[in-house]
Amino acid sequence: MSEDMARAAGEILGALDFDANGLVSAVVQQHDTGEVLMLAWMNREAVKRTLESGDVWYWSRSREKLWRKGETSRQTQTLVDFRVDCDGDAVLLLVDQTGVACHTGRRSCFYRAPRDGKLTDIIAVTVEPKELYGGDAP
Amino acid sequence: MSEDMARAAGEILGALDFDANGLVSAVVQQHDTGEVLMLAWMNREAVKRTLESGDVWYWSRSREKLWRKGETSRQTQTLVDFRVDCDGDAVLLLVDQTGVACHTGRRSCFYRAPRDGKLTDIIAVTVEPKELYGGDAP
Repeated sequence: MSEDMARAAGEILGALDFDANGLVSAVVQQHDTGEVLMLAWMNREAVKRTLESGDVWYWSRSREKLWRKGETSRQTQTLVDFRVDCDGDAVLLLVDQTGVACHTGRRSCFYRAPRDGKLTDIIAVTVEPKELYGGDAP
Repeated sequence: MSEDMARAAGEILGALDFDANGLVSAVVQQHDTGEVLMLAWMNREAVKRTLESGDVWYWSRSREKLWRKGETSRQTQTLVDFRVDCDGDAVLLLVDQTGVACHTGRRSCFYRAPRDGKLTDIIAVTVEPKELYGGDAP
């Protein structure tokens, strides 16, 4: 699949409508379970590197730099499929997530939901954040 | 569930980190199949109405107005669960989608993917757009 996606990179970049900051939204889903893991941002270079390498790259708005998912935490994402939405300002990445997607040590970033009228953590921490970032968690 | 979510509305609004335009990203997923249907935007009022009514409301950036999903197209979304992400700038709506989510008449907006090196439509049109918008499709 990766070579197939690399061949389509030019056409995909042409179909994307990057915003005023040069970004599109990236929804990230575990390919086999359907879990929505996180929402992140990609610029043109992050899209290109992801399609060409099969490793998932994002643009960090807070750090203003490209980052490869897992480069510090070792919780990598391998690209399985790359979907473009109807108006080209969002993509859906189907990935194979190693370990946890969230910097809090949970599988998914979307871990809070209303239960009994209170916002409640419904996904457990399975990796201690200090194991992900050596005590330097964001 | 809806009454439970309405009771948590104040706490959820307090947990959200609206951006400079007063918006959070909303990833929308069919609750039982796991299909990611669309990505949209919500302001404070859209979140409040959604949690209080169980019908899903968004903020349209292009039309600069609140809209209830399906108000024109009749392709409504009923809220099943409301998840908040780790940093509060994105939510995940689990919904029950009537018909199609995409204005092109496809179940999901994320219908294009690389196949054989070409960006290809992988989800069929199941409702003609003119049936959704009376010939006035966006």
